[in-house]
Amino acid sequence: SLVLSSQRRIPEFSSFVARTNTCGELRSSHLGQEVTLCGWIQYRRQNIFLVLRDFHGLVQVLIPQDESAASVKKILCDAPVESVVQVSGTVISRPPGQENPKMPTGEIEIKVKTAKLLNSCRKLPFEIKDFVKKTETLRLQYRYLDLRSFQMQYNLRLRSQMVMKMREYLCNLHGFVDIETPTLFKKTPGGAKEFLVPSREPGKFYSLPQSPQQFKQLLMVGGLDRYFQVARCYRDEGSRPDRQPEFTQIDIEMSFVDQTGIQRLIEGLLHCSWPSDKDPVVVPFPSMTFAEALATYGTDKPDTRFGMKIIDISDLFRNTEIGFLQDALNKPEGTIKAICVPEGTKYFKRREIDSIRKIAADHFNQEVLPIFLKVGRNWNSPVAKLIIEEQRLELTRLMEIQEEDMVLLTAGEHKKACSLLGKLRLECADLLEMRGVVLRDTSLFSFLWVVDFPLFLPKEENPSELESTHHPFTAPHPNDIHLLYTEPKKVRSQHYDLVLNGHEIGGGSIRIHDAELQRYILETLLKEDVKLLSHLLQALEYGAPPHGGIALGLDRLMCLITGAPSIRDVIAFPKSFRGHDLMSNAPDSVPPEELKPYHIQVSWPTDAEAEKSS
Amino acid sequence: SLVLSSQRRIPEFSSFVARTNTCGELRSSHLGQEVTLCGWIQYRRQNIFLVLRDFHGLVQVLIPQDESAASVKKILCDAPVESVVQVSGTVISRPPGQENPKMPTGEIEIKVKTAKLLNSCRKLPFEIKDFVKKTETLRLQYRYLDLRSFQMQYNLRLRSQMVMKMREYLCNLHGFVDIETPTLFKKTPGGAKEFLVPSREPGKFYSLPQSPQQFKQLLMVGGLDRYFQVARCYRDEGSRPDRQPEFTQIDIEMSFVDQTGIQRLIEGLLHCSWPSDKDPVVVPFPSMTFAEALATYGTDKPDTRFGMKIIDISDLFRNTEIGFLQDALNKPEGTIKAICVPEGTKYFKRREIDSIRKIAADHFNQEVLPIFLKVGRNWNSPVAKLIIEEQRLELTRLMEIQEEDMVLLTAGEHKKACSLLGKLRLECADLLEMRGVVLRDTSLFSFLWVVDFPLFLPKEENPSELESTHHPFTAPHPNDIHLLYTEPKKVRSQHYDLVLNGHEIGGGSIRIHDAELQRYILETLLKEDVKLLSHLLQALEYGAPPHGGIALGLDRLMCLITGAPSIRDVIAFPKSFRGHDLMSNAPDSVPPEELKPYHIQVSWPTDAEAEKSS
Repeated sequence: SLVLSSQRRIPEFSSFVARTNTCGELRSSHLGQEVTLCGWIQYRRQNIFLVLRDFHGLVQVLIPQDESAASVKKILCDAPVESVVQVSGTVISRPPGQENPKMPTGEIEIKVKTAKLLNSCRKLPFEIKDFVKKTETLRLQYRYLDLRSFQMQYNLRLRSQMVMKMREYLCNLHGFVDIETPTLFKKTPGGAKEFLVPSREPGKFYSLPQSPQQFKQLLMVGGLDRYFQVARCYRDEGSRPDRQPEFTQIDIEMSFVDQTGIQRLIEGLLHCSWPSDKDPVVVPFPSMTFAEALATYGTDKPDTRFGMKIIDISDLFRNTEIGFLQDALNKPEGTIKAICVPEGTKYFKRREIDSIRKIAADHFNQEVLPIFLKVGRNWNSPVAKLIIEEQRLELTRLMEIQEEDMVLLTAGEHKKACSLLGKLRLECADLLEMRGVVLRDTSLFSFLWVVDFPLFLPKEENPSELESTHHPFTAPHPNDIHLLYTEPKKVRSQHYDLVLNGHEIGGGSIRIHDAELQRYILETLLKEDVKLLSHLLQALEYGAPPHGGIALGLDRLMCLITGAPSIRDVIAFPKSFRGHDLMSNAPDSVPPEELKPYHIQVSWPTDAEAEKSS
Repeated sequence: SLVLSSQRRIPEFSSFVARTNTCGELRSSHLGQEVTLCGWIQYRRQNIFLVLRDFHGLVQVLIPQDESAASVKKILCDAPVESVVQVSGTVISRPPGQENPKMPTGEIEIKVKTAKLLNSCRKLPFEIKDFVKKTETLRLQYRYLDLRSFQMQYNLRLRSQMVMKMREYLCNLHGFVDIETPTLFKKTPGGAKEFLVPSREPGKFYSLPQSPQQFKQLLMVGGLDRYFQVARCYRDEGSRPDRQPEFTQIDIEMSFVDQTGIQRLIEGLLHCSWPSDKDPVVVPFPSMTFAEALATYGTDKPDTRFGMKIIDISDLFRNTEIGFLQDALNKPEGTIKAICVPEGTKYFKRREIDSIRKIAADHFNQEVLPIFLKVGRNWNSPVAKLIIEEQRLELTRLMEIQEEDMVLLTAGEHKKACSLLGKLRLECADLLEMRGVVLRDTSLFSFLWVVDFPLFLPKEENPSELESTHHPFTAPHPNDIHLLYTEPKKVRSQHYDLVLNGHEIGGGSIRIHDAELQRYILETLLKEDVKLLSHLLQALEYGAPPHGGIALGLDRLMCLITGAPSIRDVIAFPKSFRGHDLMSNAPDSVPPEELKPYHIQVSWPTDAEAEKSS
């Protein structure tokens, strides 16, 4: 980190171009200098001042009033707002009392000698100013105007800088090799979400891969033992909010590495590339098993910025008279779980409780029991009188309940009860924050490794069959290999997820490098057609080194760092949530003759089908 | 450059992994150190020595012979060549007289304590050693093995390093912003070579763009005034040798810049990123107009490493009696041109002359006349006796003809005659080099700017209509703007090509930033449907700054620098010249049900059609 930051210096923003300086950089130290500036007219005041803007900031330009400069005055007074002008002149002090301390260039102004209108601007569909609210549709339609906003400039420039620092860390400090892998590839078995690209051979298609997974493993076999790529990936998920059909990941793979090696590498990567205007990242990151994350936070991507942990209170209620708790405990794997919502009694009204119960019923088909702890009064709950004093004291102790808190209690099978409370925990946090309670500090970045995932899950459509929790190349946990042949469902994997503030921002694993093991998992356990992966299986037989890697979702990471409401705000030209480019109107119709070289034709849906799908 | 190289230090190649060192880095200075190495078995000698290889080099490992180390010996002696092993031991001196001065690690060897077989290798389809020749098909089929070769490791690692240095130059020194642009876009008008990507909306297609041209211009309108991207581009050209369906360009755009600004930027970029094992790049690069390049070298991408320039000798033969020269000069724009092939008389036999004449006849439908200058004898040519002494002396002076040279003479319309001699110039260079004459120094990198291209060309299929020489966004030369409305064919453009050793490695232009001018060129001169570009035309109306840029073809550049025979040798996973991935067998068939979500079906060609196209 020290090495990286000492290398850094301020770039020359004005080399090779017509300007001598950027608008935002001028200070009292530039007084007397002859400068040439290029920028957009932000606004004009009484034909005396003009404020010029570029990506670096704003500067005040004095419009000359003497007759000899009439042509300069005309140019500067006639040009509409957002026109592009070039001005040359001298940096002078503002008259005493007219300094603007809120403006970084507020001590100076430009005494103009010459001006040139570089391009005029017609009436805008919306004002560029950040405080002017515009719909996202309008912003996407005129993306080139939206990009002029302070926030978009900040987001895209920060993204570029962070990626550059990551590259310096990987290439210059740790000898990684940046290797480009193809995006025109072969369809992955089961890759239902891959875009197809017709080729000129009848019936033959390329596929746009979801990640360079196969290629990075093949690079390891090829002896390129420290690979990374800022990789464009593709996923056709139809319309899903806050997903993009193309997205970017920091893709990394190493030979001769273990799980800890990858974790330390990534911690260093984030530490080194972290924006200097944020608190530094503290390393190493804490780690939690998947089982613990589920039991404590009800999710595999816990937001650890705040508590409200899930507590198992089954033992407390073994002999309860509360009917639905009794019923739950009598079932196999039945449990009772609760979370304590701080000040919930104070802030939660009937409406909030109803919405919480509705979530439980709708998404989990589950009952939730709220208990309100009113100041100086008894517990307020439909079942309060069935909770005996001993239970009450023990619950208070276990859950560290305070006056005015609210307890949400549910009963049922472990995973289901945890998932429900995990969801309600976030729901309650939202509700409390809407009431002004600060639970999740926005300046806090809480990283967490989640490890020891199960290697397989039962298939949703047929629970007697197995599918990979992540992907079929993930290596089993070394302590569990024997279980592969007896109880594969119990095998943990060497997969690791990186979680930030409740969002998964990366995931990876140690891979299988043994051809026989890989074949057993693909063929025998997963019942996949290995023919489609024969090149990979073959590669493992020709001296494949042990290897592992990770991929970080760059769009999501930048979104969390900048606090942007959507990943669309950290991408220059994003698609709408329906996958459209609203600026150019893509995707678009193509005349049939242009489909001909690709030997495809459109199967137009019947009216009935079209109606059904819309 | 000084700043960049002082920042550079040797990366840690062994951080985070099982090895302590790379195989190739150990020297006498490491004597006595305990090391752990991971690598591939290169070869074994008499079960006493084993040579271990990684990307960094080779090291000799002493196989222990004492009984207590029997298990280590067994591991190291049983593992087939190219198996992956991990060894730990001590760096010791080789016994006196056994040092190998040809091997960088030749003074030391490893006294092994422990060994681990990480993965065994089955019998290889070919040997990894560089001197073993294999067909390219085999290399592509087992690309993961081919990547282990010294040459592929060198090519890919150098590529990564050069791109990293380019990024440092652009981002850290000159404030460029690395911005990713979409690859799922809308079809460009006339973009016949764009791959299509079906969407889930019936009849709607994305297109994979040939370059981020539109996006980079829109970024300029958006105030991101120094953009670059290492951009993946796509071009569907069917089967063309030494082209790839996806390729990479260093894509750059700047606001407020002129042609000189871009040229100086690129010269600095190449100077800063140039490999340190080559002679430094000399800047600035020479510049030549398109007209001059055509007249002197018969091409817009002259190889300026050698002479053999085209000389116009029309004036010399105004009164000639040689029939076909007379005929040519009597036609409008008729000229006589010649090149002088040094030592051509010495090296060129009947066979070479026949092949040269065949090229002229086949490709140019043109006659070529050779004149041989034999030592101590008269000129030897079918027309020698028709060349009078005066002409002979003047020709010798003009073309600096020496004994044993050969002159190739042709007559015809300027452009055609130049193109023919340009082609023959390269052909003769190839033939001379096959005979051992060194004309083109392979360590010489001869950069050249070619400028002042015509803005328009007559359309091939309909010469009365115009098409853009490069693309319709190219700005006209400021001195020629008035001609746009009178004689558009005479308008020069602000386009510039960067040529290296006879290959175009980049091209760019100052763009049109005036909406009205852009509309006039698109609609009135080029007769394009402007509806498809309405977003761009609109963007120019909303305060677009003057801007320009360039794109460098990274694959071609790396190919020239490494001296690789094909761009496939500087790409990790290239397609064959027919666009196939021979390793995974892409493109491949897709079951009809997977086409359904995209509302397309295959139009299978009839047998007759299939036969015709094959």
